[in-house]
Amino acid sequence: MKRIGFIGVGIMGKSMVRNLMKSGYEVYIYTRTKSKVEDIIAEGAIWCETVADIAKNKDIIITIVGYPKDVEEVYLGKGGIIDNADKGTYIVDMTTTDPKLAVKINDLALNKGLKSLDAPVTGGDMGAKAGTLTILVGGDKEDFNACLPVFEAMGKNINYMGQAGNGQHTKMANQIAIAGTLAADCEAMSYAKNVGLDVSEVVKAIGTGAAGSNQLNANADKIIEGNMLPGFFIKHFIKDMKLAKKEADIRGLELPVLSKVLSMYEDMEKDGKSDLGTQALILKYDKKQ
Amino acid sequence: MKRIGFIGVGIMGKSMVRNLMKSGYEVYIYTRTKSKVEDIIAEGAIWCETVADIAKNKDIIITIVGYPKDVEEVYLGKGGIIDNADKGTYIVDMTTTDPKLAVKINDLALNKGLKSLDAPVTGGDMGAKAGTLTILVGGDKEDFNACLPVFEAMGKNINYMGQAGNGQHTKMANQIAIAGTLAADCEAMSYAKNVGLDVSEVVKAIGTGAAGSNQLNANADKIIEGNMLPGFFIKHFIKDMKLAKKEADIRGLELPVLSKVLSMYEDMEKDGKSDLGTQALILKYDKKQ
Repeated sequence: MKRIGFIGVGIMGKSMVRNLMKSGYEVYIYTRTKSKVEDIIAEGAIWCETVADIAKNKDIIITIVGYPKDVEEVYLGKGGIIDNADKGTYIVDMTTTDPKLAVKINDLALNKGLKSLDAPVTGGDMGAKAGTLTILVGGDKEDFNACLPVFEAMGKNINYMGQAGNGQHTKMANQIAIAGTLAADCEAMSYAKNVGLDVSEVVKAIGTGAAGSNQLNANADKIIEGNMLPGFFIKHFIKDMKLAKKEADIRGLELPVLSKVLSMYEDMEKDGKSDLGTQALILKYDKKQ
Repeated sequence: MKRIGFIGVGIMGKSMVRNLMKSGYEVYIYTRTKSKVEDIIAEGAIWCETVADIAKNKDIIITIVGYPKDVEEVYLGKGGIIDNADKGTYIVDMTTTDPKLAVKINDLALNKGLKSLDAPVTGGDMGAKAGTLTILVGGDKEDFNACLPVFEAMGKNINYMGQAGNGQHTKMANQIAIAGTLAADCEAMSYAKNVGLDVSEVVKAIGTGAAGSNQLNANADKIIEGNMLPGFFIKHFIKDMKLAKKEADIRGLELPVLSKVLSMYEDMEKDGKSDLGTQALILKYDKKQ
């Protein structure tokens, strides 16, 4: 396991590529706009002109792109990874995407003699940079074990969750927990502000007890300062929540809190706010809106 | 500050009385049913026959009862604390109750030359036992300072939140944050179970990252084991959420997630489940229901 093809060199992807190179891997990259990755090429990443070039003659191919349609584009079809990767190559999609798409890719990969894992991450750009991502992996256990050193170059908390699609399902559970928690924190802070409390003091008082959460820790200061810049984009969170809701719907499982939070974010999207960070949900509680 | 009158010697109150006695205070107790407090009387607490007896000749009177109507009963009216406490006595209500009632008691107390604080707690029976309660205090800052040693005998995280009622308002913010977070955790765990994941593994994988919360830590094992015993009763949580919603409504502040969670718990109350612990919200996601 030495030669890695990497597709999706955005903010997170770039940090992941750096950590892979630091661990001694040869990393080949492809992205839509070459000018955006000149820095990482200067640091030693090797540029490929097409997805097909990335796919060929590699030990492992890693993708972390935006939406399920982007995953389909790089994996499926004539110029895609599945048609062009050599037999025995590990293909690892780290995008948060549709669990059913992960299963579909796994099935197609098996037919071609490839080994597929779905391995979405949590921990954001900070975790990617520090090499402390949580990685949630679905697929064959032996394939997981074979790729473990590569995961360990990018993350700290590496979890094997079972069959293909289970990495994605676990990520869905993660996003469901985040959605309601973040909304609850926004409601608590908004209440505190409206009744005339010092919001910082409230967060200090309640943040370590039963009401404490990593969402509160991550977002309270941003919310108090009015900093709505994206750590995690609303538009990506909407994508994740929709996928989770779809999977729940299929199983006849109602998730009323998730549905409510999703609809609030969709309202924000309609108002042109989907490029803000998820903490901007607080704006929905601003009565001046 | 030596002689303490204490009303509301339930599960939490008993632990608080023990910690006060451990710190050298003389503690006088009153409760409706004497037989339930024989143990703590044997340990040194002094029994009083009436609320009026508790109120007289004390340095500080502490109450932690059930509902706002219980608070009204012990404070207001002829046999109550306000009519019977000596001038200069500190009166401290640690019940989670209506912020407006806290302000009303404070106003009446001032008129009688008493000193009033509202000081609800978080941390539950475990925190009460260990003397690690979080205490959220509203009222005069000097009165807070005077009572601080007494609070420190019962808790660890003692917070002065501003004017009368602000202790209660901070507790409301705490309960709002808990409501949505706990519901989000139930939804995430229910999703995980429905898609066939190992729920314990999911909690382990996502519990330390962005989805992590003290609610998840406190409730995941209980939920997985099907343990619905009360750490915190649904009926008391409903009381708190209703108070919070009322205060939000007065200010024209909509809290859709709180409202949704409240209505789910109210459905459970109608089904006779209000003596279960709050983690029993998971039952609402059981499709066999």
